[in-house]
Amino acid sequence: MRILGIDPGIATVGFGIVDSERTALHMVQYGAILTAAGLPLATRLYQINQDLEELITKFRPDAMSVEELFFNTNITTGIAVAHGRGIILFTAEKLGVPVFEYTPSQVKQAVVGYGKAEKRQVMDMTKRLLKLRSVPRPDDAADALALAICHARSATSLLRQNPFAKPTV
Amino acid sequence: MRILGIDPGIATVGFGIVDSERTALHMVQYGAILTAAGLPLATRLYQINQDLEELITKFRPDAMSVEELFFNTNITTGIAVAHGRGIILFTAEKLGVPVFEYTPSQVKQAVVGYGKAEKRQVMDMTKRLLKLRSVPRPDDAADALALAICHARSATSLLRQNPFAKPTV
Repeated sequence: MRILGIDPGIATVGFGIVDSERTALHMVQYGAILTAAGLPLATRLYQINQDLEELITKFRPDAMSVEELFFNTNITTGIAVAHGRGIILFTAEKLGVPVFEYTPSQVKQAVVGYGKAEKRQVMDMTKRLLKLRSVPRPDDAADALALAICHARSATSLLRQNPFAKPTV
Repeated sequence: MRILGIDPGIATVGFGIVDSERTALHMVQYGAILTAAGLPLATRLYQINQDLEELITKFRPDAMSVEELFFNTNITTGIAVAHGRGIILFTAEKLGVPVFEYTPSQVKQAVVGYGKAEKRQVMDMTKRLLKLRSVPRPDDAADALALAICHARSATSLLRQNPFAKPTV
């Protein structure tokens, strides 16, 4: 199963593609879709859609794993991110990729085994689980890979009995 | 100039199309795009895109006038609406329709002449300005028509010197 993890945003949309075969994980690709701050929001949303369509068409993931949104920080940023997240869900639906969403603590639980793990621990475990030489950059890409791992582990038979995944969005 | 006013949402996206010729206003069509609460968010976003594309292709507006988002009420609803608003901006960009955004008080100022007008006053003035027999239903459609009127008035030469419109999204 090939999983596309997505860390939603407007300026930076992190992505991470992981192949999962039973308990084995293999990193396929990671990176970030970037849009310029000076462009109108509508244009940036369109670019995110275009780049994500290209990514999905090229790598043909079986599932998309997207972070849930929480507004515990900056509300203005949160509104913008929600605009971007709408485009991400829309693009998945348009290209027929099933969407699963996870909270940050579900990702921490799945990757580190502890729902209140530090961000640093998640990144280190992501690196180890995917046998990478260093922690992926930017952070958004590392987060996206962790989301992909989270879905891989939730979708395995053992965890399927008590899945993290909500039927979703 | 043909203006498509949009009141963003997920369950209900109000739309109102107004032709503006100098100071004359003519209502072309209004209504709402509806999506079922039981469907996944990704599916609802896709439906909004499809319906809005159909609307734009049929009526070929010269501009889209969209309400700005404020989170003074329910934050969970606000997140969902922001997802929907992302799709609306994206669809306009995709089909080449310029987007303008207005705050509720800018709409009140343009339609009633008073930025703190009651919702009822805005609806009555919308009805009168468009020479309608009754206030349009649902409220989302009436709001969308008011947004279209707001842009029509902001775009006339007199107001162009001091426009309500931000260069926008």
